[in-house]
Amino acid sequence: MLHLLDLFGTAVFAITGVLAAKNKRFDLFGCIVLGFVTALGGGTFRDVILGSTPVFWVNDVGYILIVFLFSIITFWGAAFFVQLSKLLLILDAFGLAVFTVIGLQKSISMGNSYLIAVLMGVITGVTGGIIRDLLTSQVPLILRREVYATASFCGAVAYIAVQQFVCNQTFEIILSMIITFAIRLIALRFCLSLPLLKY
Amino acid sequence: MLHLLDLFGTAVFAITGVLAAKNKRFDLFGCIVLGFVTALGGGTFRDVILGSTPVFWVNDVGYILIVFLFSIITFWGAAFFVQLSKLLLILDAFGLAVFTVIGLQKSISMGNSYLIAVLMGVITGVTGGIIRDLLTSQVPLILRREVYATASFCGAVAYIAVQQFVCNQTFEIILSMIITFAIRLIALRFCLSLPLLKY
Amino acid sequence: MLHLLDLFGTAVFAITGVLAAKNKRFDLFGCIVLGFVTALGGGTFRDVILGSTPVFWVNDVGYILIVFLFSIITFWGAAFFVQLSKLLLILDAFGLAVFTVIGLQKSISMGNSYLIAVLMGVITGVTGGIIRDLLTSQVPLILRREVYATASFCGAVAYIAVQQFVCNQTFEIILSMIITFAIRLIALRFCLSLPLLKY
Repeated sequence: MLHLLDLFGTAVFAITGVLAAKNKRFDLFGCIVLGFVTALGGGTFRDVILGSTPVFWVNDVGYILIVFLFSIITFWGAAFFVQLSKLLLILDAFGLAVFTVIGLQKSISMGNSYLIAVLMGVITGVTGGIIRDLLTSQVPLILRREVYATASFCGAVAYIAVQQFVCNQTFEIILSMIITFAIRLIALRFCLSLPLLKY
Repeated sequence: MLHLLDLFGTAVFAITGVLAAKNKRFDLFGCIVLGFVTALGGGTFRDVILGSTPVFWVNDVGYILIVFLFSIITFWGAAFFVQLSKLLLILDAFGLAVFTVIGLQKSISMGNSYLIAVLMGVITGVTGGIIRDLLTSQVPLILRREVYATASFCGAVAYIAVQQFVCNQTFEIILSMIITFAIRLIALRFCLSLPLLKY
Repeated sequence: MLHLLDLFGTAVFAITGVLAAKNKRFDLFGCIVLGFVTALGGGTFRDVILGSTPVFWVNDVGYILIVFLFSIITFWGAAFFVQLSKLLLILDAFGLAVFTVIGLQKSISMGNSYLIAVLMGVITGVTGGIIRDLLTSQVPLILRREVYATASFCGAVAYIAVQQFVCNQTFEIILSMIITFAIRLIALRFCLSLPLLKY
């Protein structure tokens, strides 16, 4: 079930990756690269850091096919997807929630500490977006304006906190995802942002 | 023989890496970094993804020495090399063909699927150029305008396709390289490009 | 002792990482990312290249806590730290010296050649700063203007050279650090720079 959600999140991230090429005159190949980087970048970075190589998509062809498929569909149907931008923001928040839980669980299953697990949850969720922004613009937006990593962080901490008291993985997964998803949506709705650096 | 071509391609990529610093006011160290990143970036990324670490140049000092040597030569002789820009484009297309085949073969020899092998061929060929562009300009040119990865992709697919029918590795290597090389040169000659994102 | 210096260097690099966000409107999360990337980027890249995974900070929580702590302190106290910019340049030179020796020693202890060891010393020292610059501005400053990697390189070479004649690791560590530190400070004091690319 979580694997299906993961593939769903991968597709959503690939779509948002391609759409980030808007106004930047990327060609088909550039858009596919953006789709790959956004959808698989976070998990790849996590696996490399933890030494879990070959990385996850090398032995599971499904991820690559999904990214290819949705990158190409989005490329040709960009005019259509751009109209769905509000829906995509919601789906992207959902993808963030899924990726966070998956990064967290993989890290724990490899025997790492809770601190590393939370960090890997966040890294899995946000790294793809940071590299996408780096490839398409000067300074990554995700580092400047949005409550994005914060939502991922809260969901990950909630998972660990509840795990101390309840021995039901399904419950923890759902709770963590709801918290990440809700915080991200509330931040979008009310244009919340973290404090900026002042000096 | 392929190893010699690989060293040749490494030298060419180091030269084009240093020349990319043109108009950007890079110093000697910055130029050497560009040489390294362009020449060794693709293979390094491939090895890290596949878990083939330490990466290939750690235990083969030849690559490092060649990159150092040609980066420094290019730095001091930039005025000369700039005049050779047409020749360098042709040699670069040749380097792309070599790197694609090497990435493909290494991936197959590690027991990966054909899909991963093709992907690794392309990654070995183009990643160095993407990071070079990222370090020297805002948005990588390779993602926006050129038939570059496409040539690498076609050469890699040809290798796999022919391998199903002919059991002669030398033939497959030469065929794959000719296809990558030819497509890249034709694209350069006629200024071909992939379709751009429209929305 | 060297471990304590390492943690000290990590704290200094985290501070300079956060301060690099100046004028760029980074939020709290963005500043923490800059702290992490600057302080841990070099060693992480070294470990990934050498195949020493999980990377060093996964099993030593101290690094992460220090980066977190100093990133947040610097974020809220940026106005104070900006006044210390001269002191920070000196401490940063010291951190560079420490990181160079640590990268060098780790590489040697894994059985790599002296050439690779010198390279890994430099990579450990400068990669964090390059990624920091990439995230905050168009073209990394470190590739264009400063005697920074050069200082690291000279310290690393000195270590290897002296090791041939003297069998006293403590002496080599201190000598290497003094050389890196001194060259960096002299370059800062007299605004020295490497030659720029001409063509």
